Amino acid sequence: MYSFKNDYSEGAHPRILQALVDTNFEQEAGYGEDRFSIKAVELLKEKMARTDVDVHLLVGGTQTNLTAISAFLRPHEAAIAAKSGHIFTHETGAIEATGHKILSIETDDGKITPVSIKKVLDEHTDEHMVKPKLVYISNSTEIGSIYRKKEVKDLSEFCRKNNLLLFMDGARLGSALCSEENDLKLSDFPDLVDAFYIGGTKNGALFGEALVICHESLKEDFRYHIKQKGAMLAKGRLLGIQFVELFRDNLFFDLALHANKMAEILRDLLTKMNFQFVTHSASNQLFPILPNTLIEELQKNYAFLIWEKIDDNDSAIRLVTSWATKEDKVLAFIEDIKKYLP
Amino acid sequence: MYSFKNDYSEGAHPRILQALVDTNFEQEAGYGEDRFSIKAVELLKEKMARTDVDVHLLVGGTQTNLTAISAFLRPHEAAIAAKSGHIFTHETGAIEATGHKILSIETDDGKITPVSIKKVLDEHTDEHMVKPKLVYISNSTEIGSIYRKKEVKDLSEFCRKNNLLLFMDGARLGSALCSEENDLKLSDFPDLVDAFYIGGTKNGALFGEALVICHESLKEDFRYHIKQKGAMLAKGRLLGIQFVELFRDNLFFDLALHANKMAEILRDLLTKMNFQFVTHSASNQLFPILPNTLIEELQKNYAFLIWEKIDDNDSAIRLVTSWATKEDKVLAFIEDIKKYLP
Amino acid sequence: MYSFKNDYSEGAHPRILQALVDTNFEQEAGYGEDRFSIKAVELLKEKMARTDVDVHLLVGGTQTNLTAISAFLRPHEAAIAAKSGHIFTHETGAIEATGHKILSIETDDGKITPVSIKKVLDEHTDEHMVKPKLVYISNSTEIGSIYRKKEVKDLSEFCRKNNLLLFMDGARLGSALCSEENDLKLSDFPDLVDAFYIGGTKNGALFGEALVICHESLKEDFRYHIKQKGAMLAKGRLLGIQFVELFRDNLFFDLALHANKMAEILRDLLTKMNFQFVTHSASNQLFPILPNTLIEELQKNYAFLIWEKIDDNDSAIRLVTSWATKEDKVLAFIEDIKKYLP
Amino acid sequence: MYSFKNDYSEGAHPRILQALVDTNFEQEAGYGEDRFSIKAVELLKEKMARTDVDVHLLVGGTQTNLTAISAFLRPHEAAIAAKSGHIFTHETGAIEATGHKILSIETDDGKITPVSIKKVLDEHTDEHMVKPKLVYISNSTEIGSIYRKKEVKDLSEFCRKNNLLLFMDGARLGSALCSEENDLKLSDFPDLVDAFYIGGTKNGALFGEALVICHESLKEDFRYHIKQKGAMLAKGRLLGIQFVELFRDNLFFDLALHANKMAEILRDLLTKMNFQFVTHSASNQLFPILPNTLIEELQKNYAFLIWEKIDDNDSAIRLVTSWATKEDKVLAFIEDIKKYLP
Repeated sequence: MYSFKNDYSEGAHPRILQALVDTNFEQEAGYGEDRFSIKAVELLKEKMARTDVDVHLLVGGTQTNLTAISAFLRPHEAAIAAKSGHIFTHETGAIEATGHKILSIETDDGKITPVSIKKVLDEHTDEHMVKPKLVYISNSTEIGSIYRKKEVKDLSEFCRKNNLLLFMDGARLGSALCSEENDLKLSDFPDLVDAFYIGGTKNGALFGEALVICHESLKEDFRYHIKQKGAMLAKGRLLGIQFVELFRDNLFFDLALHANKMAEILRDLLTKMNFQFVTHSASNQLFPILPNTLIEELQKNYAFLIWEKIDDNDSAIRLVTSWATKEDKVLAFIEDIKKYLP
Repeated sequence: MYSFKNDYSEGAHPRILQALVDTNFEQEAGYGEDRFSIKAVELLKEKMARTDVDVHLLVGGTQTNLTAISAFLRPHEAAIAAKSGHIFTHETGAIEATGHKILSIETDDGKITPVSIKKVLDEHTDEHMVKPKLVYISNSTEIGSIYRKKEVKDLSEFCRKNNLLLFMDGARLGSALCSEENDLKLSDFPDLVDAFYIGGTKNGALFGEALVICHESLKEDFRYHIKQKGAMLAKGRLLGIQFVELFRDNLFFDLALHANKMAEILRDLLTKMNFQFVTHSASNQLFPILPNTLIEELQKNYAFLIWEKIDDNDSAIRLVTSWATKEDKVLAFIEDIKKYLP
Repeated sequence: MYSFKNDYSEGAHPRILQALVDTNFEQEAGYGEDRFSIKAVELLKEKMARTDVDVHLLVGGTQTNLTAISAFLRPHEAAIAAKSGHIFTHETGAIEATGHKILSIETDDGKITPVSIKKVLDEHTDEHMVKPKLVYISNSTEIGSIYRKKEVKDLSEFCRKNNLLLFMDGARLGSALCSEENDLKLSDFPDLVDAFYIGGTKNGALFGEALVICHESLKEDFRYHIKQKGAMLAKGRLLGIQFVELFRDNLFFDLALHANKMAEILRDLLTKMNFQFVTHSASNQLFPILPNTLIEELQKNYAFLIWEKIDDNDSAIRLVTSWATKEDKVLAFIEDIKKYLP
Repeated sequence: MYSFKNDYSEGAHPRILQALVDTNFEQEAGYGEDRFSIKAVELLKEKMARTDVDVHLLVGGTQTNLTAISAFLRPHEAAIAAKSGHIFTHETGAIEATGHKILSIETDDGKITPVSIKKVLDEHTDEHMVKPKLVYISNSTEIGSIYRKKEVKDLSEFCRKNNLLLFMDGARLGSALCSEENDLKLSDFPDLVDAFYIGGTKNGALFGEALVICHESLKEDFRYHIKQKGAMLAKGRLLGIQFVELFRDNLFFDLALHANKMAEILRDLLTKMNFQFVTHSASNQLFPILPNTLIEELQKNYAFLIWEKIDDNDSAIRLVTSWATKEDKVLAFIEDIKKYLP
């Protein structure tokens, strides 16, 4: 059984484990005030060519979303998200549990546009409704699409004009930035969004998301929020060590490139075999539509998610590749499909 | 510089790191449904000789406290805690942020008694005040004291009679159970408390707290709460692997014994030198009272917390030992004290 | 200027004011423990022919919704509501502010069906999403439609089978029960829903909603929740006196009948003039579609809400009648329309 | 049976009821945008000689406290209150239910001083604890004491220096301002505090608290918070009409003067009879210490609160007078005491 279920099936890149082993007996301050965390933050600022951002290292994505969004909003303010957005559907109401409504937008491709935000704003005009205040986007999105620079720029401009915060969930930012179709750089984001994070968990770390707060007004007292939400790791060094390892050279991007390359092979071969996809993806998540009979056969040897029923005979599945995906398994998977095709 | 600042200054026991390395490329299910987590839960149930408890592995202490307590209480219900209790003072209002008041009790030794709870109950009798519902105790406490079996039994009985839940913060349960003065066993707790946790973070793990839910009515849907609070680790295997390693033999207890032994050496020698302590401790935290001049000298070579001012000339400091504390450093510390004494 | 803007433009029915005057100097207990509140609760129970329900008198609708729903749900549980439901759109995120997500259902007529709930349940199957637990319906709905007995019965049965609570917002229950098309009685509800309320504010009281808790498990400690949400009126007598007055004879229903009759006249005459309506309404809210030029003329003498743009030339408006609506004003309004029509 | 239990036992001053009757059939906008509310706000601003404050009319005290404090604070910020403060003990955790811890201060007289706040600040210095941000005082306090101008000035200065908000609960502000010992004017408060309210409920209105927001930064979007907390009355006119009536001439102060005068008679006569008081009060609440035997006798004809046990033979009771308290009843009460004394 080989799994294409997600990008967090294995542990971590061996260099990360080695770094943990090498530093294990150094005594460090707790709660993210250790030398590794400080170094990691420095490295990340360098990569972004910015000294005026705040960087905080947190453990997971839902945790980062809820800590940041609840810190950024006043009680009557709401977030806007795509219906497919992680915070809207797959976080068990984590944002609402901190008191905030999420206003959802229907999308075809998981991406939000100024036009779709405008519609929400037009519907929310007085104190009998929540006040839309923060736009949540994911890059790459939950369905594999990525934002182009022009799109983020337009969102950024629109949000600033309308006094909205722009927040980017970057749980899979590595894959997005390393996509063939990408034209954004890590250093573009501090100019374009008010806060975003760089996902480690789904790109080779044991865990870890680096939250970057760009907007001055959002920085104050942020560590209080981390602590209050149970998100302050006692041994914060673990986060520091991992992000140092990912960013002291090009490891973070190399891992994402590998994941994308594996997806590319799958996509190209599936396309050649004339399979359709639910949506276009140039990142490490693919949603091909396969006959149910084929899916059943494949499930004997491969783990993956059934995404949605398409019709009585076909369903879409989700295939996720990662830094750890083996090329021979990818090729074997395709061969196995061929076997069952006429 | 050697640190007695806390019990989470180093990484993890080498066996834990080795286990992470050994299992690194095995593909596992996410979110705590992997084979290691399942195995860890089995082992913990065996150690408690109980099959009818639910065990969940979470990352940190504050996270566990807020997830559990907010899941256990209805909106109008409050927790009762010692004023020195971690949830009352050192979690940045994490419990209150989930909507619940904490009613505090003054104590000398950090421990709660039926008499002190009774007083709170007597003061809260109608709907104009919160309804006390959960008693939070820490073992060992935040000031190093431990509960005796008789004390927990009395609390347990009192709570059941008064329809209160008894919840034990076991962030330092290892040290408590391995104290010379302890007469409680891990397997005693499911009978005595409604929920408690077994702390890994402060006893040799990278991180991890094993929450044990004993009371039937508290079990339902608990994983929803873990997810909602951002406490569900994508690579849940990391928690599973660590707890397997700690509990597949006696490692957990061996580590705690070492920490206690180091504290014992400190305590005995400081006592021989006629230093007083803020409170009696038979666990891995000591609070000796030292002259400020001595403290200043010691700070040149040792890191520790200044706990509180005692008078114009003296202060109490906190010394914490751990699984990683080196005996030669303990002895050197004492020698250094001797040097500066007349 | 005459207003058809809502059903709370005037004060209260004169009998209610008179009752306040008559009882003004009687000394009463506070917080709803006065003799009038007790009497009101008795009367309401009589009207429902039920002694086993709990009745609480609250001030307003949003207040009642948030107090009840937050008391009924655990943190991970969500409410299901129509997109047009008051709690979803017009309460400034009041429910979310207590920590709960609302899952919305698209409807044509503002009404929820078992089929639409089933779809939500099918999409929410694990702990990565909220757990749907309470179905919120409004009768009459926010767009004037009412539920038939068969519909509520089907909902009730479906909810019980699926372990869901059924909660009915009855801010305009009077109008619903007095509609020509209604086949439900006040006494039907305790059998069919788990909790509901009987709206006074929009049916002749100064303010006041009588919350009826039918399901045993929802009753405990409810007064704590009222107090915690700031919903416990010091002079609770004011609520008691008003509900006594509304229900000591048939006043409550007489007032709703009058409101409906006024709406009926409007509906019949507008229908005769071939105006379309956004949705069918047999209650005191109508949503006729009028030419914008006509609307502008009418706005000179009448206040009403512009509901939505229909096309470039036409818009829907909302006309609300009440216990205080004067028949001559209704007729004058129709005459004024005729004047401006070709 | 005559009640000295509280200052909300009767309905409202007859002029208020008359005003409700007189205006009953005027059609008005809802939600506080009616002409009476606008007029009331104008009148209140005149009385304070300030045009730069925002005034909002809410229904009750707990409601006002929770709406204001939750709107003013960010999630990690806490309120500071006296242990006897209403928000700390008698609001069923209403503030905590909005997510905020209350840090309590022990006092003898219910009043907070800069020294006592300083102590709290000194103990809260990093992100592992909540950040104290708002100081809550009540005037008059829950135990009848009042603040002198010098005291409020000192608090004000201290709070500004320390970046703290100063919030005053004025549920019984009328009585405080009309106390013989008072040297504060209504118009002093906008200079001294950041927000406060003027209580109608306990001074002759049916209900109603006028919240005055003085600090610019606290004003934005406040109506959203009122709505979200269920505190926006549909028939907001009711609040407007009452405050117009209380403040269009001197009625508000006349009523408070009467209440105080009745308390004064009680205090003087009880003092002459050599009874002790729990605390000094120059307002409408008295806490005399009486023999239990006497208390039992008095309870046959009078309602009042047993405040606390003093010793085996004596208890303190709470006597509250109001705008409606009858002088002959006060005198009869004293006569009845005399009867039972040797």
